[in-house]
Amino acid sequence: MSLLVVGSVAFDDLETPFGRRDDVLGGSATYFSLSASLFAPVRVVAVVGDDFGPEQFRVFADRPIDLLGLERRPGRSFHWKGAYGYDLNEAQTLDTQLNVFADFHPRLPEGYRTSPYLFLGNIHPSLQLDVVKQMAQRPAIVALDTMNYWIRDYREELARVLREVDVLLVNEAEARALTREHNLLKAYRKVQECGPRILVVKRGEYGVMLFTPEAIFSAPAFPLEDVFDPTGAGDTFAGGFLGSLAGSGKTDIPSLKRAVLAGSVLASFTVQQFGTECLQTVSPQELSGRLQRFSDMMRIDEL
Amino acid sequence: MSLLVVGSVAFDDLETPFGRRDDVLGGSATYFSLSASLFAPVRVVAVVGDDFGPEQFRVFADRPIDLLGLERRPGRSFHWKGAYGYDLNEAQTLDTQLNVFADFHPRLPEGYRTSPYLFLGNIHPSLQLDVVKQMAQRPAIVALDTMNYWIRDYREELARVLREVDVLLVNEAEARALTREHNLLKAYRKVQECGPRILVVKRGEYGVMLFTPEAIFSAPAFPLEDVFDPTGAGDTFAGGFLGSLAGSGKTDIPSLKRAVLAGSVLASFTVQQFGTECLQTVSPQELSGRLQRFSDMMRIDEL
Repeated sequence: MSLLVVGSVAFDDLETPFGRRDDVLGGSATYFSLSASLFAPVRVVAVVGDDFGPEQFRVFADRPIDLLGLERRPGRSFHWKGAYGYDLNEAQTLDTQLNVFADFHPRLPEGYRTSPYLFLGNIHPSLQLDVVKQMAQRPAIVALDTMNYWIRDYREELARVLREVDVLLVNEAEARALTREHNLLKAYRKVQECGPRILVVKRGEYGVMLFTPEAIFSAPAFPLEDVFDPTGAGDTFAGGFLGSLAGSGKTDIPSLKRAVLAGSVLASFTVQQFGTECLQTVSPQELSGRLQRFSDMMRIDEL
Repeated sequence: MSLLVVGSVAFDDLETPFGRRDDVLGGSATYFSLSASLFAPVRVVAVVGDDFGPEQFRVFADRPIDLLGLERRPGRSFHWKGAYGYDLNEAQTLDTQLNVFADFHPRLPEGYRTSPYLFLGNIHPSLQLDVVKQMAQRPAIVALDTMNYWIRDYREELARVLREVDVLLVNEAEARALTREHNLLKAYRKVQECGPRILVVKRGEYGVMLFTPEAIFSAPAFPLEDVFDPTGAGDTFAGGFLGSLAGSGKTDIPSLKRAVLAGSVLASFTVQQFGTECLQTVSPQELSGRLQRFSDMMRIDEL
């Protein structure tokens, strides 16, 4: 089943202790769609400038990714410059140039408005709400990502869109800032009161926790000896998670747990190389091999 | 099968955001033996002063805990005073009075020297090595805990005892300090070169990672809404982990994974109340109920 993502498509300058890359393709919608499209067809709503050319289009071309909703405007694309220290847990933003993204007003092509799965990437909560209102029918799943900036300065706008959301995907600091609860179980109760019935907390190298009314689940990060660049890991996770759900068409607990594993494994590919390098080239065999190893690793026998 | 623990028995003054308690029974050997004895008989080698009386003996009396090796000397017992802030992840030591513990030289009663399982609690690495040398036969499993102080200032002594060790149980910072590797997979390779074939990394609220030559396993902390006092959580985990192994008599991968779950669940009881309060009163039914819920939570279906 089709999955619609609204977010950013950008160029990034990345600096880690292991090297640097300039002008690599990035943005939440890029990581999300490359990841999700390994499981289900994806539709992208985003905006790019005229620096987005054939080379960039080609990245999406091999996958079932529909770019009809990718608006192209005169000017430069969103540009982000970030650096990481050795612990790789938090990016330091060195420069942000919004460029054409500053006036982004997502407009959904007619055919997108019945998409059964919707992911609202990390953009202004009022734009996220506007996207929900453009849908011709209520999707089976609406998922949302956000960040501390919106939580702090646009709390009411965020509260309004959260009422329309099924799955909230945030990192640990965001979950705590949003709910003003340190304990994640208590944070989840408050998230439920805001609207979302499912909470996914991304914890970087500590993995992911999933909260649903019926079950709690936790998966570690897939263990890697070398992590080169964590950029896009969260959006890759979200893509794998929702892609897996859209691919299965189910939202029962076993499917949600499998979706967590899928997202985690895909994020492990992303962080192994710079930008989307690894995500572009990962084969279905490599993906299913790592998924199998991850699930073997986590398996426990009956007590 | 019998499990021998060498460590501290102490009185603690504890301060957390949720209250304070003075002169509560603590120490690594206390938490360890109360936890392990739910699965297997435990023998304790430690030293106490004459402030350790009937009230303290009674705590151990209901369990299969042999105190023949608990030396009683004139003077006061080891006394630790610590405080925690709201995040509860790290204790701030306010005061340490070694008292009779300053001259602790573990001496194993004759009958203890054939114990098949040995846990070397966090004491001077030369004393840990001395205990290993007192064993009449090589135990099936020798496990060791240590801390940054020994890692930094007694590196050679620690290296000598590590050569005799099968299982190293440390927290994340200690694993990194010992191996000078940030990445835990790389840290594990270095630990293997030092002697231990199994590494257990305790990560507080993020749970535990187990590294063996054949498998890696990770378990989250059992999710709780209220954590009151993390004192003793690590030693409780170690007790549950080794107690479970000693109880089963096996060290295959499924048994090691079950041991991680047992240790994690017992630690979740410890942190729910102050000191050993919860650990003293937890019933076999509560324990097995929580173990079952934890294992259900973690279960994933075949992919």
